[in-house]
Parts: sequence; C-alpha cells; structure tokens
Amino acid sequence: MERFPLSEPVAADQTAVSKKKTAYPKIFAPAVEGREKRKLGAAFGLSNFGVNLTRIQPGAASALLHAHSRQDEFIYILEGHPTLVVDDENFQMSPGQCVGFKAGAGMAHQLVNRSDSPVSYLEIGDRSPGDEVNYPNVDLVAAMNANGQWEFRHKDGEPY
Amino acid sequence: MERFPLSEPVAADQTAVSKKKTAYPKIFAPAVEGREKRKLGAAFGLSNFGVNLTRIQPGAASALLHAHSRQDEFIYILEGHPTLVVDDENFQMSPGQCVGFKAGAGMAHQLVNRSDSPVSYLEIGDRSPGDEVNYPNVDLVAAMNANGQWEFRHKDGEPY
Repeated sequence: MERFPLSEPVAADQTAVSKKKTAYPKIFAPAVEGREKRKLGAAFGLSNFGVNLTRIQPGAASALLHAHSRQDEFIYILEGHPTLVVDDENFQMSPGQCVGFKAGAGMAHQLVNRSDSPVSYLEIGDRSPGDEVNYPNVDLVAAMNANGQWEFRHKDGEPY
Repeated sequence: MERFPLSEPVAADQTAVSKKKTAYPKIFAPAVEGREKRKLGAAFGLSNFGVNLTRIQPGAASALLHAHSRQDEFIYILEGHPTLVVDDENFQMSPGQCVGFKAGAGMAHQLVNRSDSPVSYLEIGDRSPGDEVNYPNVDLVAAMNANGQWEFRHKDGEPY
C-alpha cells in the first residue's frame, strides 16, 4: 500500500492557515472575523473526522451559537481563556479544559473570546452524513449535502 | 430534547482514569504497562469518535506497533518527548506536534516513551465499522465485532 506523503510529525501551529475564512452567508461572516483555522487532520489525509487548530482573537467567536443533529463535537483548550456559551449559560474555560457536545442533544454552543489575549483550541468533529445545524439566535439553518458541503437556508427554507 | 448530564467544561487531567488497562491478550499486556487513559469523549456521551487523554510513563508504549484498515487516527502531544515509530523509522516528538494516520495507508505506528519523564497526548480515533488492525511485529490481528468490541486472533485465524 502507498504511504501517505505527509506521515511525519509536524508542529501544529506551523501548518498552513485555511484560506477559506468561513462558509457562512456573508451577513454572518463578521461573527467569526478574527478566527483562524489550521486543518490538522486534512494535512495527514484524514477524512473520517476533522481536527482543527483554531485561534480566535479578542472579540471573535468560534462560530455562531449552533447545535448539530448528527455530528459529535469536542473542544480542548490549548491557550487563553474563552467563554463557552451553552444555550443561555456561560462558562469560563482555561487551558487543559475540554467539553463535548453529543449530536442531537440540542445544546447550542459557541466559544467567545471576551479576554484581551488570543485563544487557541483543538476542535474535533466527525463527518456523519445528513447532519443539520440549527442556529437558534439567527435566521439560519445548515445542512450538509451529498458532496460534504454546507448549504445554508433561512428558517423558512429559502436559500441564502 | 434532553440535555446530556455532563455538558460543562472539565479539566481533562482530572477526569477518571479508565479502569480497563488494555484489551490485548495477556501476553501482550506488558507492552502497555505504564499507560493510563482518560476517555474524554465518552465523558460527554460522544460515540462517533473517541478522544483519550493518554499518559505513558518512561519505558511504556502507546500500543503495539499497529495499522488500522478503516479507522483514522490522530495524535497531539501535550507533554513530554515520545518517540514516534512509523514502520522502521523513528521520530522525536515534542509538545505542540501532531501526526495523523490515514486508515488503510498501511503505516504501522506506536509512541514509545524512551525519555525519563512522563508523556501525555490526545489520541483521536473514529468508530468506522469493520475495522481490522494489523500488528506487523507480533502474531496478532484484531477485528472490531458488531458490538464494537475487539476480537484478537493469531495470524492463522486461531482466537486467543
């Protein structure tokens, strides 16, 4: 069998920053301005799950508040002190802390950097087909299409 | 929908250590003596992939040298300086470094702690059904059964 070209260890924070800033419709892009992702799993050809090293600057968020229907999500904080928002609760997080969100459990979540220093974390999510994402605070829903790409709609079903 | 009981952040290194030391047949258990796993993903009810915080003491290994047929694997070093063995190559790893192994690519791998300090890392693997594990250096193969449990056999098919 062929060996995947990149099979040696790499320094996670020296891998390439993802050029695509966000898949969100333009009006929602400001929420994640100041967010930078490095796709670590993809760097090694992994496709069953994704592992990103994500950095959010002060004032930025990891994502809009959201919940997945089929894809589990896991976060491990490497640097800084983000605020984890889960529905209407807030939790202060520190390096070495982690949290997971079971798909379908309905807990909407996001990390927000309300500190004055950068926050870095690992985020892991799987690629279960048929995933849908609900954004309770805004007029947005997302569904993963057969090509693995996100399609965004208004809550009345109208595409963006 | 019901909220999963554990939905608040936790300090990863304060979660419970897994009681089951290894699933290996007894004669292979010494290879991972000195290894301790905390099942972080399971602590939050995640089932699509696993995230473990694993610590290996000097002289211990992460696993026997092995390669998965269907499950991707990813490692991120948090503490210490393990040696990554990939087939017949050795790489020194440091905190902040990561490596991934694409399922089916045939690269057999393990981390060995040849230093005199503990090594801690995050390991992520998915749960793709039908996974098989080959151990090139010993008379062992593993297959995940329909209940998600590992079954170990000799290479001639004889069960352990």
